[in-house]
Amino acid sequence: MSDEQELGITESKQYSTGDWYAEVVQKAGLASYGPERMGGFIVTRPRGYSLWESVQEHLDEWFKATGVQNAYFPLFIPESYLEKEKDIVEGFDPEVAWVTEAGHDELEERLAVRPTSESIIAPYMAQWTRSHRDLPLRVNQWCSVVRWEATETKPFFRTKEFLWQEGHTAHESEDEAWDETVTRLDQYQRLYEDVLGIPVLRGRKPPHDKFPGADTTTTVEALMPDGKSVQGGTSHYLGQSFAEAYDLTYIDEDEEERVAHTTSWGLSWRALGALIMTHSDDQGLVLPPTVAPEQVVIVPIWQEETREDVLQYSTEVAAELEEAGFRVHLDDRDERNPGFKFNEWELKGVPLRLEIGPNEVEDEEVTAVHRPDGETEVVDRGDLVDGVDEHLDDIFTKLYETAEENLEENVREAYSPEQILGTIGQHGGYVKTPWCGDEACEEVIKEKIAAEIVMVPFAEDEDPIGDECTMCGDDAEETAYFAKSY
Amino acid sequence: MSDEQELGITESKQYSTGDWYAEVVQKAGLASYGPERMGGFIVTRPRGYSLWESVQEHLDEWFKATGVQNAYFPLFIPESYLEKEKDIVEGFDPEVAWVTEAGHDELEERLAVRPTSESIIAPYMAQWTRSHRDLPLRVNQWCSVVRWEATETKPFFRTKEFLWQEGHTAHESEDEAWDETVTRLDQYQRLYEDVLGIPVLRGRKPPHDKFPGADTTTTVEALMPDGKSVQGGTSHYLGQSFAEAYDLTYIDEDEEERVAHTTSWGLSWRALGALIMTHSDDQGLVLPPTVAPEQVVIVPIWQEETREDVLQYSTEVAAELEEAGFRVHLDDRDERNPGFKFNEWELKGVPLRLEIGPNEVEDEEVTAVHRPDGETEVVDRGDLVDGVDEHLDDIFTKLYETAEENLEENVREAYSPEQILGTIGQHGGYVKTPWCGDEACEEVIKEKIAAEIVMVPFAEDEDPIGDECTMCGDDAEETAYFAKSY
Repeated sequence: MSDEQELGITESKQYSTGDWYAEVVQKAGLASYGPERMGGFIVTRPRGYSLWESVQEHLDEWFKATGVQNAYFPLFIPESYLEKEKDIVEGFDPEVAWVTEAGHDELEERLAVRPTSESIIAPYMAQWTRSHRDLPLRVNQWCSVVRWEATETKPFFRTKEFLWQEGHTAHESEDEAWDETVTRLDQYQRLYEDVLGIPVLRGRKPPHDKFPGADTTTTVEALMPDGKSVQGGTSHYLGQSFAEAYDLTYIDEDEEERVAHTTSWGLSWRALGALIMTHSDDQGLVLPPTVAPEQVVIVPIWQEETREDVLQYSTEVAAELEEAGFRVHLDDRDERNPGFKFNEWELKGVPLRLEIGPNEVEDEEVTAVHRPDGETEVVDRGDLVDGVDEHLDDIFTKLYETAEENLEENVREAYSPEQILGTIGQHGGYVKTPWCGDEACEEVIKEKIAAEIVMVPFAEDEDPIGDECTMCGDDAEETAYFAKSY
Repeated sequence: MSDEQELGITESKQYSTGDWYAEVVQKAGLASYGPERMGGFIVTRPRGYSLWESVQEHLDEWFKATGVQNAYFPLFIPESYLEKEKDIVEGFDPEVAWVTEAGHDELEERLAVRPTSESIIAPYMAQWTRSHRDLPLRVNQWCSVVRWEATETKPFFRTKEFLWQEGHTAHESEDEAWDETVTRLDQYQRLYEDVLGIPVLRGRKPPHDKFPGADTTTTVEALMPDGKSVQGGTSHYLGQSFAEAYDLTYIDEDEEERVAHTTSWGLSWRALGALIMTHSDDQGLVLPPTVAPEQVVIVPIWQEETREDVLQYSTEVAAELEEAGFRVHLDDRDERNPGFKFNEWELKGVPLRLEIGPNEVEDEEVTAVHRPDGETEVVDRGDLVDGVDEHLDDIFTKLYETAEENLEENVREAYSPEQILGTIGQHGGYVKTPWCGDEACEEVIKEKIAAEIVMVPFAEDEDPIGDECTMCGDDAEETAYFAKSY
């Protein structure tokens, strides 16, 4: 154990959210900052990476069950490929890292370190697609991408290199491609809600905030405890723009050549940022049992004369739980006292602590303590597996419900620009308001307060709340959700 | 299905091995060549990537069961970091791709796209290690690396970017670090032999062919059908050179500061190259059932009047096998005849084909046909699951034994330089000979024929075969295995 961990969390989630977050990430051993000369890069430590592995495991299984296959495309994209789709190059060029020299030679053409891979995947999909029988074509890759944004490093939320998955598909029709777009958005929502314990809002981005070259960008948005919204994952219906730029065509059943419709969708390790930020507290990391590297930690409490019995019993309990499939750690270190261990495992976010002392041994039970609220209950040894299972479910439910309450309390309606500004200024969160669809009406708000339209709900999810655009008074086409965002 | 697949394999494994290999890789849908301006890069298609996923799944499980945790380190390494360990920089500098511009700016310091990550991982391990209690420290990452070698692209065998895992560990003592080195080498051997069906030789590289900065490089070597050796995976005992260069020290039990001993070990997608090359034939890809994306393909054979019965029965067979955990595909396409399907699945390397026609339906059986040798046997429907299981085991055994025979027949002894040259010239394979340990004695052979010492067996694995170096006549320290290599 390093010294830094022993100090515990010193910042406050409520009063210094940014510093508190950075402290939790480092002290819980999730990530370290990159080398001095490489601001914006982080090193993902094993405890952090294991969270990403949980995300991967779930999404990968769902993707494969719905027709997606993994593949791997080159890390570099020739500049001439990037330039074929003008929106992509305009959108990403300012953020691209370029390889210009290799093996002691200047390259003839600069190579972009991929900021996203449409420009290299679409031409290959074109190569592999001849007839309608080759469609739908769905590939996904788990990789890192680089976007050189000149902002402060915020581990997982904002880094110049980040891990993500990017899925790319091609279809015969707009309908099919749109269904695909929504299928992936649903899976992202499911990841947030059922795995990470974070309720989300879903909808589409306003047209001026779409993915470069996309027809429609859909998003899941999560509300953070500081009142800001996080774009949790996006799924794009790309229309035919990429297929046209890269000649992705097919011969249909009537022997006619047609242009395919494509989608792309990505979820990054920003999901980990949302996870850490949402549930953790001033004692450190809080994790739902679904993703915690250890779901249960057993802390034996002994005196010299009870040591052997307590350890023996603890070992049996650990073995039984492991056998039943739980991720369990028995902390039998001699050199640390129970109080130290309690703090350490709280800092590291283990959902359930089992305390075992001479009394528990004698009465054949264990004392179960919940993270984060300290709720304590005795579980009979005979009921161990079911008991632990229930406690873990309870903990998940508590975390989810807390986040859900926060979300529900922080979606408010507003019907004047002043009300929008005042509400966001005072409470943060989302403010929904009727909107004409014009970017200029977003600017009215954005220039006064750093809030923007983070999403517009799907028509089937929500009824309109008014007929008149709050900003300009024209006919309202839809409802805009304003929020500050990460 | 694209036209190219319909053509089948036109090259010969025996007479044009290189072209045949390239054809199999492409026609079996494993990989495509990279963009025109990016010679040396490949696109790994889903069928190729699924083989890599099999490799990952096995190694990852074994690594984790032996104390390794996954992590993720930045893609880029500042030039100043690379320069801290002089052997690394000398060894890799000629092959490095450099990022020099990002976000429209020239970078102050060039960033290397990682060719291997010792130089960025060691400094972090140093940061995380205070006391002997923090050791052993074991991290692994699954990622791609870039080495700008100016040779012809050979998919999976030689590419400028390749996927691999790189493990990095730190230990208190040389003994522990050496044990670690051998543990990983054992796991690589197990992967080749038990999963990929390829027997390997194991030993260490001669000192002049070690990993830059390493004390000892150990290797598993696989013999390819063209008589060349492939370095299948390497595990390095790095001694204290990296620990010294990057200040990786710890406080021992007596409160003394000590320098750690480190290891690193890597296995790349070259393992897929060896897999494809070893087992495949002039009909296309051959895969052991352990890694085949589909282990069993069911091809129904019907006439108009038997179609319904045959399809119904085939569907039931497929369901039963899937239920039992096999990876099964029922090829019920209307637009292709059975002969076409046979060829296609042979090309794609499915180990076991089940043919089901009206006779099989009536007699409640299936006809099982092995890839690659066409061995055919009838399996009773009542014995389906066990029968298929046995056939798949048989197929694995056949593939392994064929490779093993090839290896055994191609390790020969030689006691004069002429004999070494003649034997390798005539047969390829390995020639073992007593060696003094001097690089100059390798040169004597290397300058005449492009063969080198690919490995020296461990003392515990093999007894010496002579006292005198075959090349110079001095005392022989060990046995050298000469071979041409990839």
